[in-house]
Amino acid sequence: MNIELICSGSELLTGKLNTHAGFIGGKLNDLGLNLSLVTTVADRKKEFSAVLEDAVRRSSVIIVTGGLGPTFDDITVETVSEILNVDTYKDESVQKSIVQYFEKRGISNPAQNNERQAQILKGAKVLENRFGTAPGQMLHFQYNVDENKKVRKTIFLLPGPPKEMCPMFEENVIPFMKSYQAKIKKTLVLHICGMAESLVDEKIKPTIDYLANNDDIEFAILAHKYLIDVKVSVSGENELTIDDTIKNINQEFINVLGDNIYGYNSDTLEGVVQKMLIEKKQTVSVAESCTGGMLAAKLTDTAGSSNCFKMSVVTYSNESKMQLLDVKNETLEKFGAVSVETAKEMLDGIINLSGADFAVSITGIAGPGGGTKDKPVGLVYIGTSFKGKNEVNKFLFLGTRQDIRERAVNVALDCLRRLILKQQL
Amino acid sequence: MNIELICSGSELLTGKLNTHAGFIGGKLNDLGLNLSLVTTVADRKKEFSAVLEDAVRRSSVIIVTGGLGPTFDDITVETVSEILNVDTYKDESVQKSIVQYFEKRGISNPAQNNERQAQILKGAKVLENRFGTAPGQMLHFQYNVDENKKVRKTIFLLPGPPKEMCPMFEENVIPFMKSYQAKIKKTLVLHICGMAESLVDEKIKPTIDYLANNDDIEFAILAHKYLIDVKVSVSGENELTIDDTIKNINQEFINVLGDNIYGYNSDTLEGVVQKMLIEKKQTVSVAESCTGGMLAAKLTDTAGSSNCFKMSVVTYSNESKMQLLDVKNETLEKFGAVSVETAKEMLDGIINLSGADFAVSITGIAGPGGGTKDKPVGLVYIGTSFKGKNEVNKFLFLGTRQDIRERAVNVALDCLRRLILKQQL
Repeated sequence: MNIELICSGSELLTGKLNTHAGFIGGKLNDLGLNLSLVTTVADRKKEFSAVLEDAVRRSSVIIVTGGLGPTFDDITVETVSEILNVDTYKDESVQKSIVQYFEKRGISNPAQNNERQAQILKGAKVLENRFGTAPGQMLHFQYNVDENKKVRKTIFLLPGPPKEMCPMFEENVIPFMKSYQAKIKKTLVLHICGMAESLVDEKIKPTIDYLANNDDIEFAILAHKYLIDVKVSVSGENELTIDDTIKNINQEFINVLGDNIYGYNSDTLEGVVQKMLIEKKQTVSVAESCTGGMLAAKLTDTAGSSNCFKMSVVTYSNESKMQLLDVKNETLEKFGAVSVETAKEMLDGIINLSGADFAVSITGIAGPGGGTKDKPVGLVYIGTSFKGKNEVNKFLFLGTRQDIRERAVNVALDCLRRLILKQQL
Repeated sequence: MNIELICSGSELLTGKLNTHAGFIGGKLNDLGLNLSLVTTVADRKKEFSAVLEDAVRRSSVIIVTGGLGPTFDDITVETVSEILNVDTYKDESVQKSIVQYFEKRGISNPAQNNERQAQILKGAKVLENRFGTAPGQMLHFQYNVDENKKVRKTIFLLPGPPKEMCPMFEENVIPFMKSYQAKIKKTLVLHICGMAESLVDEKIKPTIDYLANNDDIEFAILAHKYLIDVKVSVSGENELTIDDTIKNINQEFINVLGDNIYGYNSDTLEGVVQKMLIEKKQTVSVAESCTGGMLAAKLTDTAGSSNCFKMSVVTYSNESKMQLLDVKNETLEKFGAVSVETAKEMLDGIINLSGADFAVSITGIAGPGGGTKDKPVGLVYIGTSFKGKNEVNKFLFLGTRQDIRERAVNVALDCLRRLILKQQL
């Protein structure tokens, strides 16, 4: 059975990030199913029709995302109607819920063209959109392979915005797909930091090579901004055997990677740090310069952060470093704002201000300007502290301003994680 | 001429964001060229070979991203070698520069398998990777359409990580593509905020309808987290005529959208705000609760922010609101942390602390927990201040914790923008 994804939207070919392929592919993969093809196509009728015709011919299940909105370039429903030769009608209850959606936001007279979103294919099931106005649709249809052979196929129309598409996919497409599930498939993702990708690869290679001839076991490795993921997928008929295989592989990886593994599956580095702090009933405060609040934003990303996050300050200027954190003027003059000494005094300052158990300070040169021979762009000092014991480490990150800031934040989180781990020994 | 993009990488079908289609499509579009198809495929040899064979048959230019790294699932070079029947060799100078790259980072003995990245197709031009180890490759090759007809085609192999792929694309693929440019094409993107997507659509529809029969003019509209983009593309032979057409359309849009247009093309809302502040030689400080540093991170996203960004505090707890910002205990007890009154006192606090000209405060309930009937998840108060004149507005945002935080940040930036604009009148 072929499952095909068509992402419609000219913007997806001209600069806009497409998050659908990854999300949908991942969810199907977890069921032991695979996307056979992902095509991204402009929301112009000619191009979209051509792709849709091919997809209807070659695949049993077609998932279309995008083009269900209220504007002139939202052409999915009318194109599917033409290609499948199925009429549309205006669904009054859909129209009503769109009006209600706007009323909830205090807009009593939504623009007329929102009516466009109430056009439904005859025979389709309307899929509720809990996070937006455009409903989704699921239609089973007959496809004539030739004069004598007809097959039943299914098309899903889902909205383009991820926050609308994702829940609709989980609530409607997943249950439908489960009926196609062949083997059981389970996946474990290990999250690793503090090692280069090639070193991780070298460490896990013996295990991978040992299992190379087993088609039921797949590995993937992926690095992004200091963080590395290793994904293990195991298929089979027996859930207990699968669990056992995954457990054994995980143990092999723990043996070679140790506490460089910071989490599994949906764990995030910031979430892991937060959980450790809350479990140990301890608090953290942060003083940032070049990362400008990004570390604090990460540490408050997960609900519940108020249980461990005390406060943070962004002291971008020398003036604010002195005023808020009592960094000495002579320290800034003698060693500069980007120095071990300043990072240390920032740590002292934020601890005095907040009384938190743990503290982190970051000062560096994110660029693109401001670098010198002695202090190049990418130079970052990261300080961590636990109950008065301070440590500052020096890093040199490559890449753009954004890369440098993101890496600094991830490394700071990892430094904090390792410091918390130490307290558990 | 068909230009086709193949994004290789199982991770792109199983959860990892694919940013390449947008980037490459956008860059080609700016040249007046179009991607005919984007296919995302697993980095398993069988699947990748099949897609590559199709692409080589139907397209003149094939761009492959991903699969050039050091690990076991990096199969691009060997697969292309097989499909095109072109040998590979180990390039010593590439190998040398990989070793140097690691030495620069203080790693003197890089893992052996980095040698894999030095395998080059015979006849290919090596494309320097300034931000990573795996070099790119460009190969012109003969394709036998049939016994009598041969055509020259071109394949580009580019690395998977965006920060490596993007500069390599700009430096190597763009110059090559320019030789194929047919018409001149120019694009203007208008950035709008403070209006619903359907209202923007309604306002600009008369202009779009008026120009509907002109094939040389294209429009696209796109909404994301409170921000809306309208893209106008005009093609033609005469640059002056194109500029004139774009200018006239822009004027029409300015007439109906006014100062809801916050910028053009690569402008960002935070960048625009920063520019306005620097031009007026004024400063801003920020006090955040539920957004946890995200607004500060945005305001320091662009280089040069030290010229206008004074400081920020993240007062996530009641305690820190009182301690750092002098929010009164009785205010927190009587009205709660999420209230007009607290937002006002946070504003006063950050102004007193920083002495900045402008100030912004944010306090709200980002969820998913913590909501009540009177104060539901999504309730956010945003305060802005200019020289002692304070204003607090109430908002109700829908969506996930992340949506609510991102919308709050964008709306806060817009409130600040409008307040700065007012001072210019």
